[in-house]
Amino acid sequence: MTDTTEMLDTHPSDLSDIDKAKLAACIDACLECAQACTACADACLSEDIVADLTDCIRTNLDCSDICFATANILSRVSGHDAAMTRTVLEACRAACNTCAAECDRHAEMHDHCRVCAEACRRCEEACAKLLATLA
Amino acid sequence: MTDTTEMLDTHPSDLSDIDKAKLAACIDACLECAQACTACADACLSEDIVADLTDCIRTNLDCSDICFATANILSRVSGHDAAMTRTVLEACRAACNTCAAECDRHAEMHDHCRVCAEACRRCEEACAKLLATLA
Amino acid sequence: MTDTTEMLDTHPSDLSDIDKAKLAACIDACLECAQACTACADACLSEDIVADLTDCIRTNLDCSDICFATANILSRVSGHDAAMTRTVLEACRAACNTCAAECDRHAEMHDHCRVCAEACRRCEEACAKLLATLA
Amino acid sequence: MTDTTEMLDTHPSDLSDIDKAKLAACIDACLECAQACTACADACLSEDIVADLTDCIRTNLDCSDICFATANILSRVSGHDAAMTRTVLEACRAACNTCAAECDRHAEMHDHCRVCAEACRRCEEACAKLLATLA
Repeated sequence: MTDTTEMLDTHPSDLSDIDKAKLAACIDACLECAQACTACADACLSEDIVADLTDCIRTNLDCSDICFATANILSRVSGHDAAMTRTVLEACRAACNTCAAECDRHAEMHDHCRVCAEACRRCEEACAKLLATLA
Repeated sequence: MTDTTEMLDTHPSDLSDIDKAKLAACIDACLECAQACTACADACLSEDIVADLTDCIRTNLDCSDICFATANILSRVSGHDAAMTRTVLEACRAACNTCAAECDRHAEMHDHCRVCAEACRRCEEACAKLLATLA
Repeated sequence: MTDTTEMLDTHPSDLSDIDKAKLAACIDACLECAQACTACADACLSEDIVADLTDCIRTNLDCSDICFATANILSRVSGHDAAMTRTVLEACRAACNTCAAECDRHAEMHDHCRVCAEACRRCEEACAKLLATLA
Repeated sequence: MTDTTEMLDTHPSDLSDIDKAKLAACIDACLECAQACTACADACLSEDIVADLTDCIRTNLDCSDICFATANILSRVSGHDAAMTRTVLEACRAACNTCAAECDRHAEMHDHCRVCAEACRRCEEACAKLLATLA
């Protein structure tokens, strides 16, 4: 998703105090994680043992919601409140960590949980790296 | 929005450890705040002095996004991770506080900012009250 | 949710060509339906026979997503493209119809499906009534 | 965003009646378009002539909302109602068309509008191609 970087590069505001590479990486990781989580919830619903996967489905849906909101909030780069951005990133990181742990429990049996757990870990890391630049 | 309470009352899980009244109040406050923020951003865009209201518009949009995500996450009542719910509620409370403060600055001149600030304050309080029950 | 009407009444644009009562009713119905659908999906996940409810869960999630988007788009009242609004309302009406029919199938056994079906029917009607004013 | 394809490939349902390549392309195009639209609205808010760009901002926000909802709905691949999917895709295509036309009007003056218009056109095409497979 190269558009994210191009949209930052064409933004009229002075963004010199922002680490654009880490910001773009975090936005993209949020979008990819949100999609993986929505898809993983749907895949879990198709498994014969869906009754054993209800926690995974709920965690997927929660993670998807917070990742989409975070991607949107991060995409509004100028003039935003740093303290608020930080709490959103913390919430997103926590959701990704929870969802990765839950999906990891089923990763050996269900490939979609393995792929989703990897997307969650990447997003968790991207949030942590962006948070480090805001400190 | 009485459906929120009715949906909680018809949920098959044992929710006896949850303060259902405060949960329903917080979900409804999030939805009302999200709508007010989306509408306030649109109203700001119609003001002659829109150039002075860009921070208000951005804050409105951020607050709306996090409020919708929070309403969804809170509506998944069973089996969710308490620590994750708490970080989302903290992020929502922070966004509502920021948005209320920004809208308050324009409340005397723009009635939509006054109504929106009130919705943000109610949501901020509802998040705080629900957080207190999770501690 | 009286704020929806108050936000329309305080909007600086001339909205005399819009049926504000039907617009506010449709926005509120979308938000209530979205919440009911998210909650119904979660309640279905807690039922012992969750394996028989996977279509209901998917339809709930789809309906919730389109209802939230419709509520947001309708809340941007000024200057929007009527043809685009109409296609969004048609999609929302179709999703509510599908979800109501699916939930109705389980309404006798699951009270949450009954409540959710009613919210979907109300939203479907509100979309139809608003569409009639745009024709 | 290669995860989208991988999530489809690991889905346990029989998806042989779905054109997976076109579906994955459409989901990715929706996510990229949603991000570009959110970012373009923010960039427009930073322009000196923001007062001339309010229609662009509103259209961006509408397009972003419907693109996110469409990406989510398309990511639930199994068992969904084809008629409902079609109305959502039609709404998304209409929103992308409207937003591309609006952004094109400012593309020479604002690079972010040019990039966003291209993302909208790609998404419009991806929706059209997927719709053709559903007919």
